[in-house]
Amino acid sequence: MNLIEKLDAAAAVRKSLLPDGVGAFGIPIEEVYSATEARIGDRRVLLLGTNNYLGLTFSPECIQAAHEALDTEGTGTTGSRMANGSYSGHRALEQEFANFYECCTGIVFTTGYQANLGTISGLVGRGDTVLIDSDSHASIYDGCILSGAEIIRFRHNDMIDMEKRLRRLGDRTTTTLIIVEGIYSMLGDQAPLAEIVQLKNKYNCTLLLDEAHSLGVLGETGQGLVEKTGLLKEIDFITGTFSKSLCSIGGFCVSNHPQLDQLRYISHPYIFTASPSPATIASTRAALKLLRNGSNLRKQLWKNCTQLYTHLNTVGYKLGPEPGPVIAAILDNPRQALQLWHGLLEHNIYVNLILPPAAPDGKSLVRCSVNAAHTNEQIAHVGATFEKLYQQFLAA
Amino acid sequence: MNLIEKLDAAAAVRKSLLPDGVGAFGIPIEEVYSATEARIGDRRVLLLGTNNYLGLTFSPECIQAAHEALDTEGTGTTGSRMANGSYSGHRALEQEFANFYECCTGIVFTTGYQANLGTISGLVGRGDTVLIDSDSHASIYDGCILSGAEIIRFRHNDMIDMEKRLRRLGDRTTTTLIIVEGIYSMLGDQAPLAEIVQLKNKYNCTLLLDEAHSLGVLGETGQGLVEKTGLLKEIDFITGTFSKSLCSIGGFCVSNHPQLDQLRYISHPYIFTASPSPATIASTRAALKLLRNGSNLRKQLWKNCTQLYTHLNTVGYKLGPEPGPVIAAILDNPRQALQLWHGLLEHNIYVNLILPPAAPDGKSLVRCSVNAAHTNEQIAHVGATFEKLYQQFLAA
Repeated sequence: MNLIEKLDAAAAVRKSLLPDGVGAFGIPIEEVYSATEARIGDRRVLLLGTNNYLGLTFSPECIQAAHEALDTEGTGTTGSRMANGSYSGHRALEQEFANFYECCTGIVFTTGYQANLGTISGLVGRGDTVLIDSDSHASIYDGCILSGAEIIRFRHNDMIDMEKRLRRLGDRTTTTLIIVEGIYSMLGDQAPLAEIVQLKNKYNCTLLLDEAHSLGVLGETGQGLVEKTGLLKEIDFITGTFSKSLCSIGGFCVSNHPQLDQLRYISHPYIFTASPSPATIASTRAALKLLRNGSNLRKQLWKNCTQLYTHLNTVGYKLGPEPGPVIAAILDNPRQALQLWHGLLEHNIYVNLILPPAAPDGKSLVRCSVNAAHTNEQIAHVGATFEKLYQQFLAA
Repeated sequence: MNLIEKLDAAAAVRKSLLPDGVGAFGIPIEEVYSATEARIGDRRVLLLGTNNYLGLTFSPECIQAAHEALDTEGTGTTGSRMANGSYSGHRALEQEFANFYECCTGIVFTTGYQANLGTISGLVGRGDTVLIDSDSHASIYDGCILSGAEIIRFRHNDMIDMEKRLRRLGDRTTTTLIIVEGIYSMLGDQAPLAEIVQLKNKYNCTLLLDEAHSLGVLGETGQGLVEKTGLLKEIDFITGTFSKSLCSIGGFCVSNHPQLDQLRYISHPYIFTASPSPATIASTRAALKLLRNGSNLRKQLWKNCTQLYTHLNTVGYKLGPEPGPVIAAILDNPRQALQLWHGLLEHNIYVNLILPPAAPDGKSLVRCSVNAAHTNEQIAHVGATFEKLYQQFLAA
């Protein structure tokens, strides 16, 4: 079988598992009306499956900043940060992230995916170890593979399993990077950060926290889980993305270790890629200001999260362990999940369908992402629709 | 030594090798005036170290398209292509790339780096083989590492060495992906594509061609090396980037194998990243039109390339084997390269300094990138400055 035939074989396997499932992935969005509404085919749908947690995609400040950067600096830098791609905006944004996290330094990457690849592969290499949560995002897995370090997984949020694996590592814990996430993307639950920090200190490891889904969402100023838990000073490296609460494209890493800056000379995903476009940097800088001052947005967001989580829980849906902007209904099998996903779309509600192997432990998920721009009425309508479909498809 | 101390040790080694070299990397660009001029510190410099080959960074069509997309679609999609991030622009751009290359299908990636990572790690895996040129870009290397395939390198553009390695592979050639580049980023030379295609067919391999630096530069309509050589139909997969001739951020892969679309379900760097921002997609679509109709820009570009290459060659600089938009002076050692780089900056000319290990075979390079917006006078001035510095630093 040659390489092309192998792709055919993989497609055939996927098709046999779920003949009608493919249409649910990469569904065409024809027009976007706002942070909460779009057109899919002929339907005007409620968007409940984006990472637009603060609802800032159409914020006038961000759009205006991007317009100005386009006019003054052009459409792209056409160069890497190492070459001609370090404009004043790139450096200012790095400083603003460092300030936001009260850290001495920060690095901006071209995507959030590359932020994890670049940070991880810059910090560890062959002979080192990464100890990661089994529900880690693919960008963490890929960063670990790229690094050449030995990859050890512990059971999701299971501190007993984590310590067991740390003990087994013996002397190697000093060259071990622990990687956890503020809010996990699949079930929306948070890492038990206090216990993780305790273990990190006990075993002299280094700790990287990915705040991709928690930035803007947790903490008074939106720093994420570090702020909610008051553990900012205990974390060695924090990564995050611009494509969720900050509504653009890119990623960052901040640290109180000035050595982070060495990654600029060794990390391929930082060095060998063009730097973010001026408009992206400008809108992200504007969004970061809105995010820091966004406690009212966070209040509305959490009101929405709690309202929907409580509703679905009361109806009888199996959910992740705690409310949050990511609320995943865990179905018994892919067909059931697909049925629910289709049912919601027929009621003009767009959510995410996540099937194995993308979902952990072979789970089939129908995942909602709630945002601050959703109204109480919209959330109530979503809850009622989920309830109706539960009666229709799932009630025993 | 823990992970932080390891970064210190790496920094110490680098510093001992080249105490004054660090300032040459990531030099701050304070203001950008045009496709050819910017401010570095207090100097108004001539930009001769960007990948802005067609000089389109400030093209009114591209900027206008980006402005419109910002207003109608917002600053970002806040979602992956698999979820809510497949807007009509993303799909249209994929179709436009497929049409441009007369292929049946195309995929857009969020960066050029991720285009190579995603295509390679989607096409090959454990048990397969990648046969790559030793001068390959880091994104190709990283894609190969991520894939888990066995990596075999052949000497840069050396067809005898390439065939030797193909023969050794025996039956495994049918699951071997050969990867070459249209124009190599270090010395600016082109792959011997006709011979590579012959070997590919003789040994039944699959061939991926990266046109990152040749897109917009080679061929009547700017397809790249495939057009210049007339070998389009012989190539299985073509990748490229938006951050050079197209002046934005992103990447693509096109193919006449409809199986390319399977990568949408298996390739992490495609699936687990937010889709490009609407403004990026819009400006890229406008740039692609300008590129296809840009034979006059290419004429000016090649006039500039030939003028500078000939001048430097006549002066006595050791250069890559052929003229092109990338013209690299090969120096004897890092200190000499640094001296020349500094000398050019003092004459208000910005070029790229490339030292080992970034440059191949331990070479030290001062690399110029010529573009279509440079005037003959600017190129003549650059040539004369190089000549002066040669007399000053390098003449025996």
